[in-house]
Amino acid sequence: MRYKLTMSYDGSYFHGFQRQTKDISVQETLENALTLIFKQPIIIHGSGRTDAGVHALGQVAHFDSDQEIPPTNLKRVLNKRIYPHIAITNVEIVDDKFHAQKSAVKKEYHYKVSINQYDPLLYNYYLFYHDRIDISKIREAMTYIEGTHDFKTFAKLNKKGSTIRTIYSFTLDVEDGILTFKIVGNGFLYNMVRIIVSLMLKVGEGKFEPSHIKEILEEKNRKAAPFVASPNGLYLYKVYYE
Amino acid sequence: MRYKLTMSYDGSYFHGFQRQTKDISVQETLENALTLIFKQPIIIHGSGRTDAGVHALGQVAHFDSDQEIPPTNLKRVLNKRIYPHIAITNVEIVDDKFHAQKSAVKKEYHYKVSINQYDPLLYNYYLFYHDRIDISKIREAMTYIEGTHDFKTFAKLNKKGSTIRTIYSFTLDVEDGILTFKIVGNGFLYNMVRIIVSLMLKVGEGKFEPSHIKEILEEKNRKAAPFVASPNGLYLYKVYYE
Repeated sequence: MRYKLTMSYDGSYFHGFQRQTKDISVQETLENALTLIFKQPIIIHGSGRTDAGVHALGQVAHFDSDQEIPPTNLKRVLNKRIYPHIAITNVEIVDDKFHAQKSAVKKEYHYKVSINQYDPLLYNYYLFYHDRIDISKIREAMTYIEGTHDFKTFAKLNKKGSTIRTIYSFTLDVEDGILTFKIVGNGFLYNMVRIIVSLMLKVGEGKFEPSHIKEILEEKNRKAAPFVASPNGLYLYKVYYE
Repeated sequence: MRYKLTMSYDGSYFHGFQRQTKDISVQETLENALTLIFKQPIIIHGSGRTDAGVHALGQVAHFDSDQEIPPTNLKRVLNKRIYPHIAITNVEIVDDKFHAQKSAVKKEYHYKVSINQYDPLLYNYYLFYHDRIDISKIREAMTYIEGTHDFKTFAKLNKKGSTIRTIYSFTLDVEDGILTFKIVGNGFLYNMVRIIVSLMLKVGEGKFEPSHIKEILEEKNRKAAPFVASPNGLYLYKVYYE
């Protein structure tokens, strides 16, 4: 049967979601724990990678086993084994057609920027930025990102396959000196959210006019936006399925 | 001249404040940076130690140098060198009679407990505890801690010197599932705040009656309170000088 896991993790403690040869990953931590619990080799499939330092509040993965462990029990024993930097928030037994990556229809990322005085206790969880930014200009620039576009400007050089993506919504909450960018799309290219946030901040500080975002997109050239915001502020917030 | 530093740090990244032979400490990080900046060996004196994992929002230290660097400049260059897990919030040139430890008249610690669902992103910053606790019983038990007492029950076995301390105030804020204990005293024994908080939580879950705290104090025996709450929830909030 197929199990679906939903989880949070602190990306500061992992070299990304995906298993690596040397460094500790979320995938390896989970697979090692599940292999011990099921007493058979377990391979998990995530909804997608997250990079080193990137956090998750709603990452999803699936795996198969011929053994049935009731979800509540599995959640409890798995959480004990993976404590403290990953927490499973939900376990479900799902249809065999469910696939964590292929069945995903939308993903939501949040990116948190603090314009308050630097606080070392929040280093891993925010991008700290100066406060000389114009929020209304950022909001104007954000409108150019929404919709269906060829995001080739934000793709790796020589990226294979389509670079067309649809951004369903891109909003900004501002409260107590914390800017939370919320972006929902049908898919994201590698580093795309971090490049977009970086550009929005440059618009905010007056380095570009908001309308320049449209030009950058139309240029379809990675060199037009050679900026990537720190992974520390990025959260995979939710993966949506039908 | 004598310099006074006020600082925040994330205790998760240090084996305590005090210099150690092997492991990285806040003191060593600061001394190494200051020695490079002043181009002469600098030794700092903290207001007191904090243990591995314990955070500071207002730790204070002093050091001497025959060179004068304007406080604003020193703050800037020092912060660059010690980034990201320590931040200097204030630099002052003070009277030579000032001593970070000996001149301190009061200290304030905060201890944060979360009774919300476990969140791996907050692991280093809260003690997570179940929510079956009676806040009114905790508040009642807290009254036995305030005042001047012999806190020998909370001292290391064979601790030298007086174990009498005065707790000026001990309060509890409860908001959104976060309990913040705030304690102000003229001094604290090793692990004293963590032992007290641990006892308060045991009262809250009904393991002891509030009045048992009075008996434990009067017993003057460490074995009567063999509990120490995790360092993760503890913050040195402020050091008070006259």
